Amino acid sequence: MEDRREKLAVLGSTGSIGRSTLEVAARLPERFKVIGLAAGSNVRRLLEQAAAFGPEIVSLRTERDAAEFRRRFGRQKIRIVSGPEGAAEVAGRPGNDVVVSAITGIDGLGPTLAAVRAGTRVALANKESLVVAGAFLRKEARRSGARIIPVDSEHSGVFQCLAREKRRFVSRVILTASGGPFFRTPASEIADMGPKEALRHPRWKMGRKVTVDSATLMNKGLELIEARWLFGLEPARLDVLIHPQSIVHALVELRDGSVLAQLSRTDMKVPIQYALTWPDREASPLPPLDLARSGALEFHRVEPARFPLFALARTALERGGSLPAALNAANEVAVAAFLAGRMRFGRIAEVVERSLEGHVRRPVRVLPEVYGIDRETRERTREILKQRT
Amino acid sequence: MEDRREKLAVLGSTGSIGRSTLEVAARLPERFKVIGLAAGSNVRRLLEQAAAFGPEIVSLRTERDAAEFRRRFGRQKIRIVSGPEGAAEVAGRPGNDVVVSAITGIDGLGPTLAAVRAGTRVALANKESLVVAGAFLRKEARRSGARIIPVDSEHSGVFQCLAREKRRFVSRVILTASGGPFFRTPASEIADMGPKEALRHPRWKMGRKVTVDSATLMNKGLELIEARWLFGLEPARLDVLIHPQSIVHALVELRDGSVLAQLSRTDMKVPIQYALTWPDREASPLPPLDLARSGALEFHRVEPARFPLFALARTALERGGSLPAALNAANEVAVAAFLAGRMRFGRIAEVVERSLEGHVRRPVRVLPEVYGIDRETRERTREILKQRT
Repeated sequence: MEDRREKLAVLGSTGSIGRSTLEVAARLPERFKVIGLAAGSNVRRLLEQAAAFGPEIVSLRTERDAAEFRRRFGRQKIRIVSGPEGAAEVAGRPGNDVVVSAITGIDGLGPTLAAVRAGTRVALANKESLVVAGAFLRKEARRSGARIIPVDSEHSGVFQCLAREKRRFVSRVILTASGGPFFRTPASEIADMGPKEALRHPRWKMGRKVTVDSATLMNKGLELIEARWLFGLEPARLDVLIHPQSIVHALVELRDGSVLAQLSRTDMKVPIQYALTWPDREASPLPPLDLARSGALEFHRVEPARFPLFALARTALERGGSLPAALNAANEVAVAAFLAGRMRFGRIAEVVERSLEGHVRRPVRVLPEVYGIDRETRERTREILKQRT
Repeated sequence: MEDRREKLAVLGSTGSIGRSTLEVAARLPERFKVIGLAAGSNVRRLLEQAAAFGPEIVSLRTERDAAEFRRRFGRQKIRIVSGPEGAAEVAGRPGNDVVVSAITGIDGLGPTLAAVRAGTRVALANKESLVVAGAFLRKEARRSGARIIPVDSEHSGVFQCLAREKRRFVSRVILTASGGPFFRTPASEIADMGPKEALRHPRWKMGRKVTVDSATLMNKGLELIEARWLFGLEPARLDVLIHPQSIVHALVELRDGSVLAQLSRTDMKVPIQYALTWPDREASPLPPLDLARSGALEFHRVEPARFPLFALARTALERGGSLPAALNAANEVAVAAFLAGRMRFGRIAEVVERSLEGHVRRPVRVLPEVYGIDRETRERTREILKQRT
């Protein structure tokens, strides 16, 4: 009998989103068959995943880790690859029905592109792909017929609200932001915060880098850029509201005065499952959202003075070209230095701003240009960090 | 040149919803041509409306009013009719593209049925039609191909959220209720309230009867029964949350944990316009909803002890048959007595409950049975009112 299950590849399978994806897939065994896994360097966890799901192919970041995996994995029928080409091979196999793209950072771009070029349905969790090469990916998806379904809770919310509305009826798309750990901290105290405080996110359990981005609101800025390409909406129609409860994820304002919103518990398995099963919906093991118990829902405007990195991201969104890629690279370097304890919270924005002052904005046409901007910005930002520590 | 505008008939044109409908139509003159108006006894306002919109037919409740209209309206080319048959003629004309059904009370049933039987699109504001004869109207609409689009803000919200979802993915539909003027009044004081207090609705400006129904939450109970037929959802999937801000009108909970919601300012022109232009959306002259200024959104469960009429309506929803028609009739008589100053607020529920105790529940198959139940319940309720005043 033919196996009619959808064939699933997970890029970044040992990370937070990857693991949640496999949890969802494990709960829907009649619907999904995991056939590819791409990981970074967590050999032990990939071994467990391969044993549990029996994929046809796995990939690790280095050939050394791949060799270790090969040695420790007893089974015969599995292909083991490594490096960027390995991840791209897992992503681009013609047998894939759905590819979850959850490798973080610019490393996710290559494999995402491979999946898009293969014309597969791509459940996209990697923000950077669209931030640094949105126009490019959009064009490739149009060409191959690939459908990109967002995994981020905010974009999943927009996607669900937009579903049947004609784009010309949409006056505004609003993403919500929790406001992060410093939303209620006096502005004068924020600058001096350290990693411990910044990592205390009130709502979402996420990786360290994105948690810091959530405190600076850079994360929301990057999400606006992502939304621009995901939904084909010009910057003026994109907005953010701070919503500390993180229950409403997105709002779509229509020109007749109606607003559609998507709400859910703050559990990434909700949008992950939707991206996998779209346009269907499968039952969830979570208890239903209980608005009578969750407390009042508040919405606040973003104060640009409090979140200078958000203002920078908004500029990058509006001006476009190479600016988003440079912003993303400068921010990654600055946040890494902050997380390493090399500077206080307030310095992140200063460093990114100085780095962007040195950036010459230009159009981005081909992929090597994206990588070039990324490299050059990282170097410049590291230089800035050295000058004053 | 052929007139390609949609031909619109408005039943209850001089009432609150009717007037708002004509405001919306007047703002979209290239889209709608008003060809029929049915009013009650407000001859003066119907004369103004006829002069402004130039309909082909008008109807008034009594032949006396129709005669007065005939005398005072100078133009030749207009047909002037009266009585229930007159309203049904306006509603059922084959030339209609959209019929707004906004005659209040059970009087709206006949004309609504005429529009449904004609296979027209019906923008339904009259609650009672579906409450007293929901199964019947649903069957007639299926037969004729008529599409019923809700005008009530809550049902419009559900309709907009449901549009994109398969019915089997829907786990619950939640209508919101403002809670009315007594939501924060100590339970011990509510029973003694009079019409003046009950008519002080915090959010919506509506007619007197529906404002009292909003204070007892009977209005929301009737809306649940309406939703049952409008969306073909069994009672267990229908629920209510009190939401004092009246910004979120409805929530649709999906089985995967996502919830879709519809929000708007509390202005009936939003759902009216949507019902007219569906599936399109036209621009609105209202400023957009500003959640950052509207204050926090709260949601509360309904306390059945505080709202005994809501509990009665919930029973009528679940048991069905002739019970909703009897409930509606008993409530109308009791509310009229309350508004006439003949009793205090707490008595409304007592009277309705006693009247229903005398009702023998039975199936409703044909329309004369509905009218029979209505008549018999009104008589019984009036008797109860006489016994103790």
